[in-house]
Amino acid sequence: MSSPDGSVRSCLVVGTGLIGTSIALALRGQGVTVHLSDRDPVAVRRAAELGAGDPGVPRAQVDLAVVAVAPSATAEVAIGLLTGSVAATVVDTAGVKADVMREVRRVLGRAGHFVGTHPMAGRERSGPGAARADLFEGRPWVLVEAGSEEASRARARALVQLCGGVPVRMDEIAHDAAVALVSHVPHLAATLVAARLAEGEGAALELTGQGLRDVTRVAASDPDLWVDILAANAEPVARVLTELRQDVDGAIAALREVSEDPEWGRTSLRELLVRGNSGRARLPGKHGAAATAYVVVPVVVADRPGELARLLVDAGQAGVNVEDVRIEHSPGQPVGLVELSVSPGVDDRLTQALLELGWVVHG
Amino acid sequence: MSSPDGSVRSCLVVGTGLIGTSIALALRGQGVTVHLSDRDPVAVRRAAELGAGDPGVPRAQVDLAVVAVAPSATAEVAIGLLTGSVAATVVDTAGVKADVMREVRRVLGRAGHFVGTHPMAGRERSGPGAARADLFEGRPWVLVEAGSEEASRARARALVQLCGGVPVRMDEIAHDAAVALVSHVPHLAATLVAARLAEGEGAALELTGQGLRDVTRVAASDPDLWVDILAANAEPVARVLTELRQDVDGAIAALREVSEDPEWGRTSLRELLVRGNSGRARLPGKHGAAATAYVVVPVVVADRPGELARLLVDAGQAGVNVEDVRIEHSPGQPVGLVELSVSPGVDDRLTQALLELGWVVHG
Repeated sequence: MSSPDGSVRSCLVVGTGLIGTSIALALRGQGVTVHLSDRDPVAVRRAAELGAGDPGVPRAQVDLAVVAVAPSATAEVAIGLLTGSVAATVVDTAGVKADVMREVRRVLGRAGHFVGTHPMAGRERSGPGAARADLFEGRPWVLVEAGSEEASRARARALVQLCGGVPVRMDEIAHDAAVALVSHVPHLAATLVAARLAEGEGAALELTGQGLRDVTRVAASDPDLWVDILAANAEPVARVLTELRQDVDGAIAALREVSEDPEWGRTSLRELLVRGNSGRARLPGKHGAAATAYVVVPVVVADRPGELARLLVDAGQAGVNVEDVRIEHSPGQPVGLVELSVSPGVDDRLTQALLELGWVVHG
Repeated sequence: MSSPDGSVRSCLVVGTGLIGTSIALALRGQGVTVHLSDRDPVAVRRAAELGAGDPGVPRAQVDLAVVAVAPSATAEVAIGLLTGSVAATVVDTAGVKADVMREVRRVLGRAGHFVGTHPMAGRERSGPGAARADLFEGRPWVLVEAGSEEASRARARALVQLCGGVPVRMDEIAHDAAVALVSHVPHLAATLVAARLAEGEGAALELTGQGLRDVTRVAASDPDLWVDILAANAEPVARVLTELRQDVDGAIAALREVSEDPEWGRTSLRELLVRGNSGRARLPGKHGAAATAYVVVPVVVADRPGELARLLVDAGQAGVNVEDVRIEHSPGQPVGLVELSVSPGVDDRLTQALLELGWVVHG
């Protein structure tokens, strides 16, 4: 088997880290012949051992070359492959697109055989050992197609399809602005809040709840990786962050004024909070659908093996599909509150069923 | 049965919303005689119907009065109860403490029969119907005891114990600074990020991942409630937010400079990201213990009833206690990635057991 339109039968993956090896595994699973290359011979051997493909550069031109190296080396590697006609089509996978597209065009002029892409997938772990054939399943995969020939566009789309991704067409400016907004600035905001905690008194941290844990979760990521990402997308990130700072200034002014001019201060704070509500409400729900307002059924669960399983078995026997699970950690006591998110309309049935089975449900 | 030291046998709860009714239910469950009062007769009747106590003000002095009204009315109600000697001890439950303590002392001088308190518990729902006897189980409950007589301190501690809370002693200034840091500013930061999304292009939101959902979750809260909270704690919140703005300014400067002076720009960004790492690492883990670095075992699960239960049953049969569950939603495809957090050392056993049972584990 190969791609639906047969346009990708052979592929060279350059860079056998998490992303490159995962792409290679996915393509191999679909019957594509895959060659593997990396400047690190250990990485390429490991990827080959995992069944991702054959080490070494192909002797004949392949249908597709995928560049999955560090962002700072991406344009250079892509230009080399395009110049050498190693593949009929070359795509990259870097998380910031304008700089790569600009550099490729600067050196090669109109680069019809090149398509910029960005699979929106990743893991906390890295390297070929963390790779999975299904890493991209159901994840958005951005395609920057401007200037590309139709045959190359088709091969890039075939790649996304073979990997189970969801193609999203954007130009590079829109892409970089989008990731600044939905990923890079949120990451910085989490970091800014977490950085305040680095200096706070220890006693304050005893009062921590789930809200703070959620807000700061991504702040635990690798700083070196994030320096690269932010530096590559500096201007769009600075633009969104500058807009955000205007709201910070507004909030500080409102807080400083609220004792002198309560009405103005409160109105100003409320306006910001309402805008926050609106923005949050625009986030898509799971599976890319519009956000569904799930109903939360909170259940008290003892913190010992099997209790959570027992709860979900009981929920399943009530015929209810649990859409999300959140465990609220309680300091100091071996009891947790598990919040089961379910579709509106089935929450009453679930609550009733769990109560009958002896669960303590916070109705 | 009454409190361990017998100091709280009778109680008046003023304000039968979520917090007041939950306290009343917890005290009733421990055999305390509870009287209920609220300016809204419907709320007090509903609380009474739920078994929270008897409507109406007691004829004789009670051991304890708990003020659980809106923050802006708290000091006034507490002063009225203290002046009328309705109870031997009066406590409040407002989420900001300095203004209440100041007002009580301003009117009454040294208020030995008063103890300021703040139970760190809440729910997305409000009103007596959302109340639960175990709302405070294992949650921190701040006690501001300065100026209180020993008998009143003992009654306040007995209240916390009867409700299953974890007493945390702080002065009001430290409390307000702490909640500004761990709750109010994080809430504002989530709001600031979400407010950016209110104006962003729809296409950008297609690229949304779990990170953004986590960062902005609390931004979905009730604006009116949060205006009250922020206005009551304006100065400490403004102080933390001003510190945060310095880091925003630093990040913007670093991003603007990174093309001109890459080394300075990157070093500056890295320093901020590292501070974020440090702050995040200081958050306590579940049950108030020091943060444990759980190991995440990611498993591919079909999105249909019973699959999550089946996974957790299988995990339980491997003898593994799952500490946390996170469901990664994939847009466009009916498959999800479930991340099971487990203690370090048991992750290999869990992975092996699940693989043997046919699960797809991202090792």
